[in-house]
Amino acid sequence: MSSTMNRNNTLQTMRNPLDVVVRPESVALVGITVNNPEHWTRTFLDSLVEFGFERPIFLVNPRGGEINGRKVYTSLEEVPSTIEYVISTVPAKASAGLVRQCATKGTKVVHFCTAGFSETGSKEGIEMERELVAAGRETSIRLLGPNCMGIYCPESRLAIDPSFPKEAGPVAFISQSGANVNQLVRRSALRGIRFSKAFSFGNACDLSESDILEYLAEDDATEIIAIYIEGVKDGRRFRKALEKAAAAKPVVLLKGGVTAAGARAVFGHTGALAGSEGTWDALCRQTGVIKVSSMDEIVDVLVALRFMTLPRGNRTLVVGAGGGASVMTTDQIEKNGLAVPALPHDVVEQLREFSSDAGNILRNPIDYSQDLWQPGKTVKMAGIATASSVIDLLLVFTSAGLFSSKSGSKLPEYAEMIVAAMKGCSKPAASVVELSASPEEQALMFTLFQKLVQAEFPVFFSASSAARAISTLLECNQRKQRRGRLIEEVVSKGAAYS
Amino acid sequence: MSSTMNRNNTLQTMRNPLDVVVRPESVALVGITVNNPEHWTRTFLDSLVEFGFERPIFLVNPRGGEINGRKVYTSLEEVPSTIEYVISTVPAKASAGLVRQCATKGTKVVHFCTAGFSETGSKEGIEMERELVAAGRETSIRLLGPNCMGIYCPESRLAIDPSFPKEAGPVAFISQSGANVNQLVRRSALRGIRFSKAFSFGNACDLSESDILEYLAEDDATEIIAIYIEGVKDGRRFRKALEKAAAAKPVVLLKGGVTAAGARAVFGHTGALAGSEGTWDALCRQTGVIKVSSMDEIVDVLVALRFMTLPRGNRTLVVGAGGGASVMTTDQIEKNGLAVPALPHDVVEQLREFSSDAGNILRNPIDYSQDLWQPGKTVKMAGIATASSVIDLLLVFTSAGLFSSKSGSKLPEYAEMIVAAMKGCSKPAASVVELSASPEEQALMFTLFQKLVQAEFPVFFSASSAARAISTLLECNQRKQRRGRLIEEVVSKGAAYS
Repeated sequence: MSSTMNRNNTLQTMRNPLDVVVRPESVALVGITVNNPEHWTRTFLDSLVEFGFERPIFLVNPRGGEINGRKVYTSLEEVPSTIEYVISTVPAKASAGLVRQCATKGTKVVHFCTAGFSETGSKEGIEMERELVAAGRETSIRLLGPNCMGIYCPESRLAIDPSFPKEAGPVAFISQSGANVNQLVRRSALRGIRFSKAFSFGNACDLSESDILEYLAEDDATEIIAIYIEGVKDGRRFRKALEKAAAAKPVVLLKGGVTAAGARAVFGHTGALAGSEGTWDALCRQTGVIKVSSMDEIVDVLVALRFMTLPRGNRTLVVGAGGGASVMTTDQIEKNGLAVPALPHDVVEQLREFSSDAGNILRNPIDYSQDLWQPGKTVKMAGIATASSVIDLLLVFTSAGLFSSKSGSKLPEYAEMIVAAMKGCSKPAASVVELSASPEEQALMFTLFQKLVQAEFPVFFSASSAARAISTLLECNQRKQRRGRLIEEVVSKGAAYS
Repeated sequence: MSSTMNRNNTLQTMRNPLDVVVRPESVALVGITVNNPEHWTRTFLDSLVEFGFERPIFLVNPRGGEINGRKVYTSLEEVPSTIEYVISTVPAKASAGLVRQCATKGTKVVHFCTAGFSETGSKEGIEMERELVAAGRETSIRLLGPNCMGIYCPESRLAIDPSFPKEAGPVAFISQSGANVNQLVRRSALRGIRFSKAFSFGNACDLSESDILEYLAEDDATEIIAIYIEGVKDGRRFRKALEKAAAAKPVVLLKGGVTAAGARAVFGHTGALAGSEGTWDALCRQTGVIKVSSMDEIVDVLVALRFMTLPRGNRTLVVGAGGGASVMTTDQIEKNGLAVPALPHDVVEQLREFSSDAGNILRNPIDYSQDLWQPGKTVKMAGIATASSVIDLLLVFTSAGLFSSKSGSKLPEYAEMIVAAMKGCSKPAASVVELSASPEEQALMFTLFQKLVQAEFPVFFSASSAARAISTLLECNQRKQRRGRLIEEVVSKGAAYS
């Protein structure tokens, strides 16, 4: 399609509005603050510049002036060109008027960042949102928001924060809350996850969670979908969209506001009706969606989906440092749905030749504290024990604060040992590197953590969270198997090893 | 008592063996490695030197020689004095013999660090532990361990790690596992907790968890007792000791090996029999002991006991930054036993004058994201809302990564705002500062965290863990109230404010 045709109005009208959001021909930032570079409305410009957005960007504020050498137009009318996508930070009461002005500029979609609409619960707020919707209908302009941060799409150099990763990846995120996009993208990025798109949709007065979900279900750049949702307005449609998406790729869902007080907070946040936890549990079970219950769990499940093959079962070989830690680790793993079986006699016999201490070390968990600095031994033992028919996966555990400034020099060798153990074993493998509050310890643990992330291994921050993420996927897979489908077929696409 | 009388043998015989462990007249480190300063057996010497232990220290190893200018005796016989307390790192098979040699030196207690006894499950190991016990009986020498790290007592300058805090505090810890002493002391120290004593007792072949618990119940320097236990040999006696201790001061207990596989790991770790989780739950309920289920939870409960007055009820005002975060935070708090009630109409009216956004900000949680840099406002709103009769406590929440290198300069002002809000309010208060994996973010969050710890406020790493710790104490208190006792009476001793 030539760029001339692309600018043809008739064809543009037919573009999916989410295509416009994801890859706009031009963007206007309306309501951007001119004099205060620290003001939150500057985030969008900072992000577009940092990401190197290559299409026209127009700035609009009645004050006029300049921002970093870019002209600020005093009104939309003054902009000497059409504007496909508008990001608005104008006050709530000016929003409906803005939509009508946009109609004169060939605008397809307006994203309203501004809050103060139906989520306030006030008469005025509800009325203003109604007017906004009416203006959208009148002008055939589609609306994203209000009360949200909009789109992050590294491929087309759109972001809602300049510090987001610039590389794209196979995970898409749909979030009612913009703050949660920020949290999820940052936390996932640290764990090696990259995104195709992340949408925050706020009050969803027009473009909704279902529109976005249907769009992502068919998006070739998206292999895994994560959703943070507080409530839906059209439950039947959302259910169908979930079904369609979950049939095509793994879908992970976090419902915000599952407790009564949480539901009240939801209403204050995005004006949505929350629904009970039981309803959402059933919805996810029936549609084959992986339901989780915290932001950390979303990230954990994404890490497992992205960087490990689903194990055949839940029987885990635990290899880790620290005696008391092993007992606690075993408890945490079993409480979170994985099993830590005893190793059979013949495997113990095979391990015996490596052990200086015939007792402790030959059990599961294998506590290699005493051989911490003899990595070759640990790698061999992990390999032999993981190959046993009673074991489905390997979990390598490192306690917070295992390294001090004294032993920090041995960290690279230790990291290589873990990589070798995970690469060398014949079953899916994951690792746990505990966080520490102490910045010195944390810096050392982070070095280890990063080496494992760079090697594209799944790394978790606790044995509980590793076990919970993996057992959640196993349970979901069992349900799907009963229904004749295998999540694994989809999951294995993203596997770092097979 | 004169020092002459103190050295009188008859009187010494009458000393409680745990008094000897806690404040020995002299120490010998038998089995210390001479040539390798990195060897783990050197930890005890390094710790005594670092802590400035002022009584005689003797080093013994058949090789002889010197360590940092200190003579290494080739045998116990060679030591030209009595030795009250021996820390042994000799091999398991030489241990019983060592006890008999100690008899010639007037030794009262030997701590066996060495593993390889009954915890291996091997015939040889079990037999060696039996011989050890027999040697102890024969010689009237009391034994600590084997398979443990012994004593940390900052007041008498004894430690098992040179990096432990040198200041003493009101918390005592009893742990079957030495590694857990290390973990608990470090993690608690970061949160502002200091210790009177910490004991690791390993296989407890002679001096047991009950001996230590009875001792600490009467110890004036100890106001709160924490226990990590994997299994007991004399259940009836332990139950009595728990009852006695819990009647005198708060006792927090973590049972390791509550799952079947965990119990197996316990046996491999300290050779103890684990018992079912139900048994332990009942034991704690009946004796008024606070039962927790992870090391992190022990620390959280200690923080709550040490730095906050127990609230009258569970109704929590949440003040925090980030919209989606508030919904999730509310869910996490309610799921973990606290309530987040709506504020009454009159309170909302009082708050209205401070709010730029009449909707969101007047609810509970109060989301002050938009007024993040107008701290005075937040402090006043927190004060007014917390004073409401529907609120029992204040929880101030800060998301991980709230500060970037850009906004980091505002952190001191932000920290002062939280301190002012917590000090200014008329109810018990706690705060949450989330950890981050990113070292840069973590360093900023840690600065905030430390300011709150220095101000002696309770700081938790997540809303869930804050809610769980506080609701655990509330539940335990309710049980005690029904039995006519108030945990609060004891707890308020350690309160930072009333």
